Amino acid sequence: MAPVFDPIEQNENIDSKIIAGLERISRVFRLLLWDIAKDENLSPIQIQFLIFLLYNKPSRRRITDIANEFNLTKATVSDAISSLEEKNLIEKDKNTEDKRSYAIKLTPKGKKLAKQLSIWADVLKNNLKNFNQEEKEAVLKFIFKLIESLYEAGIITIQRMCFSCLYFQRDIHPNPEAPHHCNFLNKPLSIVELRLDCEDYAPIESN
Amino acid sequence: MAPVFDPIEQNENIDSKIIAGLERISRVFRLLLWDIAKDENLSPIQIQFLIFLLYNKPSRRRITDIANEFNLTKATVSDAISSLEEKNLIEKDKNTEDKRSYAIKLTPKGKKLAKQLSIWADVLKNNLKNFNQEEKEAVLKFIFKLIESLYEAGIITIQRMCFSCLYFQRDIHPNPEAPHHCNFLNKPLSIVELRLDCEDYAPIESN
Ligand code: SF4
Ligand code: SF4
Repeated sequence: MAPVFDPIEQNENIDSKIIAGLERISRVFRLLLWDIAKDENLSPIQIQFLIFLLYNKPSRRRITDIANEFNLTKATVSDAISSLEEKNLIEKDKNTEDKRSYAIKLTPKGKKLAKQLSIWADVLKNNLKNFNQEEKEAVLKFIFKLIESLYEAGIITIQRMCFSCLYFQRDIHPNPEAPHHCNFLNKPLSIVELRLDCEDYAPIESN
Repeated sequence: MAPVFDPIEQNENIDSKIIAGLERISRVFRLLLWDIAKDENLSPIQIQFLIFLLYNKPSRRRITDIANEFNLTKATVSDAISSLEEKNLIEKDKNTEDKRSYAIKLTPKGKKLAKQLSIWADVLKNNLKNFNQEEKEAVLKFIFKLIESLYEAGIITIQRMCFSCLYFQRDIHPNPEAPHHCNFLNKPLSIVELRLDCEDYAPIESN
């Protein structure tokens, strides 16, 4: 089978065209992130760390959490974290220190910057205005199912998302529109209600 | 309006959830590309250049074409190109030299490597097997419409894609399933038949 980037393959195989199309969209994210990174003299991943720290509670702000979130090694995360520390954007959260690890928190300067940077992808949102609700729901279902499949294939780890959450019960309701259940919210979840970044998430494995 | 990465915003706004979801998928591409880049001691963008050179004809293999394709400055492209030249993976295509510019071509060594690397995103394709044809068509339409919107908003440049092609005629057929027309192929194009990487593409602006 020819690679997804082969033009002839794309004409004949819708799967290849979809993957090549998603890759094209992923370039837009890269582009936007690089633009803002250049302006701030930070690396793209450092910007994403700052935003992650802005929206997560202390128990989800350890080096391990960041490594899992971005599918990076702890060593890579530690390097970026040290550099952010030198810039006085983050610091150890002393309240959370125990024998094994500690959480990281934004300094006031870091928090201010993270808030500014957190809009880096928002320009894309304006480009959804030409789609109706039905189209949006279809694409959101696709996104969730694809992420789930990548997770189950071991290609990515996920956290803060229903699929790997302690409270998630898969396919327990007969209604095909809302087959899943959240034991924390105590209600059925439709596919579009599944969460990508849930504040109530708890990982299945204790850590 | 809260940023798309704000968990509360995502729960309330499907647009934010879609963008955050696409960003999550874009991380998978970054991850796969970095993995292969580390193994080959190349940068992610250098890998994408090699694959681009593999699938494009000489008239689309100038520095300008690569810069447009990846929305990079010519200076950035030139740097990466010099480094690939030092590694004996690419060379000037002497046949195409004129006063203004020249095309780049892969050396035999570069071609062999580009072929190996070109499968970097293919693992994602296996994860589309749980979707039916209708779901795939819906998502492909979404991808094309989103790319078109980003192009029209001036966020990205595109080439080798119908929207910026000399041969493309928009919305000239009454059939809503195949409203567009390609003057090169001389036939109506349905939305899923639109091309991302077309070998017959010609840019609207002469260059
Ligand atoms: S909504 Fe939140 S708490 Fe409930 S299953 Fe999903 S991730 Fe877990
Ligand atoms: S199919 Fe190719 S030649 Fe035809 S309009 Fe699209 S890009 Fe141009």
